[in-house]
Amino acid sequence: MRVPVPLSKAWRLFNHGPVTLISVAHEGRENVMAAAWVTPLDFDPPKLSVVLAADTYTRDLIEASRTLVIQVPTVSMIDAIEGVGGCSGRDVDKWTRFSLDRAREPGVEAPLVDGCVAWMAARIVDEPELASKYDLFIVEGFAAWADDAVYDGARLRAEVPRELRTVHHIAGGVYVVDGEVVRARSIEGA
Amino acid sequence: MRVPVPLSKAWRLFNHGPVTLISVAHEGRENVMAAAWVTPLDFDPPKLSVVLAADTYTRDLIEASRTLVIQVPTVSMIDAIEGVGGCSGRDVDKWTRFSLDRAREPGVEAPLVDGCVAWMAARIVDEPELASKYDLFIVEGFAAWADDAVYDGARLRAEVPRELRTVHHIAGGVYVVDGEVVRARSIEGA
Repeated sequence: MRVPVPLSKAWRLFNHGPVTLISVAHEGRENVMAAAWVTPLDFDPPKLSVVLAADTYTRDLIEASRTLVIQVPTVSMIDAIEGVGGCSGRDVDKWTRFSLDRAREPGVEAPLVDGCVAWMAARIVDEPELASKYDLFIVEGFAAWADDAVYDGARLRAEVPRELRTVHHIAGGVYVVDGEVVRARSIEGA
Repeated sequence: MRVPVPLSKAWRLFNHGPVTLISVAHEGRENVMAAAWVTPLDFDPPKLSVVLAADTYTRDLIEASRTLVIQVPTVSMIDAIEGVGGCSGRDVDKWTRFSLDRAREPGVEAPLVDGCVAWMAARIVDEPELASKYDLFIVEGFAAWADDAVYDGARLRAEVPRELRTVHHIAGGVYVVDGEVVRARSIEGA
């Protein structure tokens, strides 16, 4: 079940560097793309840095709407992740082609992609030079949610069923799934 | 064995979002810290975005030397990763405390941390406003290497021994190790 995540803890949903899906809506048009180059930038309010390649349909819609949802898909969605990253919403309806369902949250224009395990609704911070020089966008979250199967109310659970695990893109359609969880031994006083 | 990686492919060493170690040298002082908020920003020449918190010793040294090495440690180094992230090089010699050995490469001022599986030597791109507003640095790689046990000459190997796998920081000293490798089925034409 999707449950709210306090904004001050929402950065933790992205801290382990998973592949994300980015969704957007603008004037009745809705699209979704995959993005691996997403990382936390600040804690509270949470900021993420997001690379959005030039000339993509998703970027055009985001620059128009100024809002987006960044979400973390699971290994169960691996073919859809690769698929939405490999074609343009200008040419196809990705929602239909990749059998992605949409959920809605009040006050959030972009749809949330069903089946993901973490979501952040965010606004673009106005940094036009970063976008033009580096395709880099800074976004600030204004709401976040997680599937309570993977989130314990404070952070991502250490142990989750295989089908709900998140993935990391190596290259060329090859991904690594979250594996064993380890806790570091504090050796501060060593 | 550490082997050179072509610069045009060096972004792939960081694409899966692992925790990194950042090392620096300046006027005889050398330090190392952990950084999870590191992500590719461009392909060729490779650029990474790196968040370096204000008032850290490592950032002071990097801002002085303008160069650094960003490297990917393994699960075997988990206690050292947590350790170098939990204290300051102003107070302790982290190399000694966490038993980290250094390797040298010609033309690279910063030491490479032994035991890692991927390394990129980089220069700071001059963006002082990003540093002051967001603690965000853009760096451009000028040399890269990988351990040939995990790198096949073009990309990270899909299957590597457990002790050489990289890790992703969830939060609070809890990390997830790279697990199963999956290949997406192309459904472009579906």
